[in-house]
Amino acid sequence: MAAVEPRLLKGFRDFLPAEQAGRQTMLDAITRAFEACGFAPLSTPAIEYADVLLGKYGVEGEKLLYRFLDNGGRDVALRYDLTVPLARVVAQYRDLPKPFKRYQTGTVWRAEKPAHGRFREFMQYDADIVGAASPLADADCIAAGILALEGLGLDRFIVRIGHRGVLNALLAGLGILDTGLQLAVLRVLDRREKIGEEAVGQMLSELGIFPENSERLMRALNEGETGLDFAMLSATDAGSQGYAHLSRVVEVLRRMGYGERIRWDLSIARGLDYYTGTVYETTLLDLPSVGSVMSGGRYDTLLETYGVPAIPCVGISIGVDRLFAALVELGRAPTGATGPQVVVCILGESVLMTAVGVVADLRRAGVRTESVPEPTARLKKQFEYASRRGARFAILLGDAEVAEGRAAVKDLATGLQESVPLADLVEHLRHAISEG
Amino acid sequence: MAAVEPRLLKGFRDFLPAEQAGRQTMLDAITRAFEACGFAPLSTPAIEYADVLLGKYGVEGEKLLYRFLDNGGRDVALRYDLTVPLARVVAQYRDLPKPFKRYQTGTVWRAEKPAHGRFREFMQYDADIVGAASPLADADCIAAGILALEGLGLDRFIVRIGHRGVLNALLAGLGILDTGLQLAVLRVLDRREKIGEEAVGQMLSELGIFPENSERLMRALNEGETGLDFAMLSATDAGSQGYAHLSRVVEVLRRMGYGERIRWDLSIARGLDYYTGTVYETTLLDLPSVGSVMSGGRYDTLLETYGVPAIPCVGISIGVDRLFAALVELGRAPTGATGPQVVVCILGESVLMTAVGVVADLRRAGVRTESVPEPTARLKKQFEYASRRGARFAILLGDAEVAEGRAAVKDLATGLQESVPLADLVEHLRHAISEG
Repeated sequence: MAAVEPRLLKGFRDFLPAEQAGRQTMLDAITRAFEACGFAPLSTPAIEYADVLLGKYGVEGEKLLYRFLDNGGRDVALRYDLTVPLARVVAQYRDLPKPFKRYQTGTVWRAEKPAHGRFREFMQYDADIVGAASPLADADCIAAGILALEGLGLDRFIVRIGHRGVLNALLAGLGILDTGLQLAVLRVLDRREKIGEEAVGQMLSELGIFPENSERLMRALNEGETGLDFAMLSATDAGSQGYAHLSRVVEVLRRMGYGERIRWDLSIARGLDYYTGTVYETTLLDLPSVGSVMSGGRYDTLLETYGVPAIPCVGISIGVDRLFAALVELGRAPTGATGPQVVVCILGESVLMTAVGVVADLRRAGVRTESVPEPTARLKKQFEYASRRGARFAILLGDAEVAEGRAAVKDLATGLQESVPLADLVEHLRHAISEG
Repeated sequence: MAAVEPRLLKGFRDFLPAEQAGRQTMLDAITRAFEACGFAPLSTPAIEYADVLLGKYGVEGEKLLYRFLDNGGRDVALRYDLTVPLARVVAQYRDLPKPFKRYQTGTVWRAEKPAHGRFREFMQYDADIVGAASPLADADCIAAGILALEGLGLDRFIVRIGHRGVLNALLAGLGILDTGLQLAVLRVLDRREKIGEEAVGQMLSELGIFPENSERLMRALNEGETGLDFAMLSATDAGSQGYAHLSRVVEVLRRMGYGERIRWDLSIARGLDYYTGTVYETTLLDLPSVGSVMSGGRYDTLLETYGVPAIPCVGISIGVDRLFAALVELGRAPTGATGPQVVVCILGESVLMTAVGVVADLRRAGVRTESVPEPTARLKKQFEYASRRGARFAILLGDAEVAEGRAAVKDLATGLQESVPLADLVEHLRHAISEG
């Protein structure tokens, strides 16, 4: 058989040990934060029936689905996010106690055009509350996300919070009543930070919005919390209700001590079709160009698409890979174990069997340990191996040591070496390691 | 749009919080064991070019690949195991330091006919050593697996260890020299425990093996370590070398203290085509019917299929889902956090903002905390909610408490209630929780 070139698909990545260990440390920190907020874990399949996913992400999103016929000819697709599978779960297991607070991390797939920082396979880490209409629930999701970012050592970030209902009311106040047109306007506004107000004005004009209305809209968005044009808001009940809801979310987050982390920002629209209320995005102040690292919102009507009564839902999603890349760029990359703390050197075949017993004892005591790959007499090579593996300590076992019932323990950081009775070895190393 | 029925594909599963929390606890325990043995994490994509995976799993295995054309018309497939992606990584990044000891957990997909306990999506947890031909490496992988199972509280299990080279030598000694026929015989032998010796003899006879040879073979397999028919072994060098290798693996494991956990068993063949040396399977003594929960072996020629020089490889793979199901059946199911330890009850709108501050403070201190979903005056309902969420403590905040700067803390297990100053609340609850 001809040799196959070992290669990756474009937009897909391997994570080699140093990076993957850091990613795992990051995921663990997020897990701790989400659990501290009372969320519980859920796992759903990577593959769903295509119709379960369709009609949720908008026309452009749907084009990005990895959709195929499986071996039984079923029309299936890889999951595009973790939100729609959650909605499917809640619709399917009707008796799940509500509010249902779940966290979930996993890989999602989108057939995007690969570009710098944009991948076809990436991880999300979500926390959602199903069955709670209260603004307390929105605040809880945002607070969980903030706790997670703080747990990763991040300080300089801002969660910008808006509300689709308020934004729609503003649009309605300007006479933009058609849902399709509203969605088109929202999509333009969503790009406001990226492309600037002038380009937004131009694109709105192409949608048939008069310049004076674009200006009023922009002014309302910029004025924010205090200076809002309430005359425009009163165009719909949903608008004033949304305004009250959003105000409460912001107030709760402030009382939780997150006043400096949040910002009222009505221009947030989010790209996805399913959002109905609050929407939020997170900017790293020292790396604004990476875009939002944590986003979400309320989606109170998504369940209806499965033929069940609407259940209010709200959630937040951390873009794990984007956030990890940002942490690396900020010099705050999490790290994790990538090898042994102790390497047992074996000075000759005759002590091999003693050595493997020492290895096993240290491991049982929780010390990350391995032996050199082969017994060999060249000690210098064995030390080099221990260093290369990142070990802090090398244990030397030769005939003389074993005859005396002792081992030599070398601290590879300081070069100091001491003789330790075999019987005390485990305690000695546990202590030495815990002292750093 | 017509409603879509929320449903799962056959052979796929959701894991709701209680089960998923237990699975995560199990995965964490395996991670600790593999890290204790010096393995480092790797992550590879779920999707690979189809040709990267083809030709590794045998004809029957290959039929089970989830293979499809992606949006760019590329012939791709979901990964079938974690071993072949590892081989691809090692062939692709030629300068990875060897030995390369990696662990990896992840989902794999096989379009099996769904049956009781057989799924199309399941998790594996692997540890492999690339670039070490020594029997120490085989023993290290098996030891890592044993440490993982012990870490899950398992005691009654046996790792049965055989060797393909020895088995092939036995076959050659009986004149079965054709590779295709050898493979067919191995596949039959592989089912020996399931179908019994009589059925095996019948199937071997259908392959053209004379009954006296089947009997000699079966006798050699049953005699094991000490009584092996060396006359048959000497038919090939590979046979005697394999015998020496296997003997050393078993000796090392015994010296590591695992003598009672391992058993010499030459009948092990494993289904996959890529194994070349030692092969092993693990039986739970109290649940033999579930089959092997941890298997692996040596595959020294797999890298060659990528046009790179052969690199010796050996590994072990834990069947996460099968093992978890077995732990449940044995009454040893791991558990994990599925909700808050503390629920803050809010007796009226006026104390809401104090309450959310208390919630945030407890979370920052690592106490799993949430408030009731809505401020409401009906205390009994709020207590019921706290109990239903699995909390141990309820904190009561009303106007009187807040005016005094205190909160009532109720132990939901004992019913005892005490008044605690708000300033001491975090310390009080941390202490109460750590005391269980």
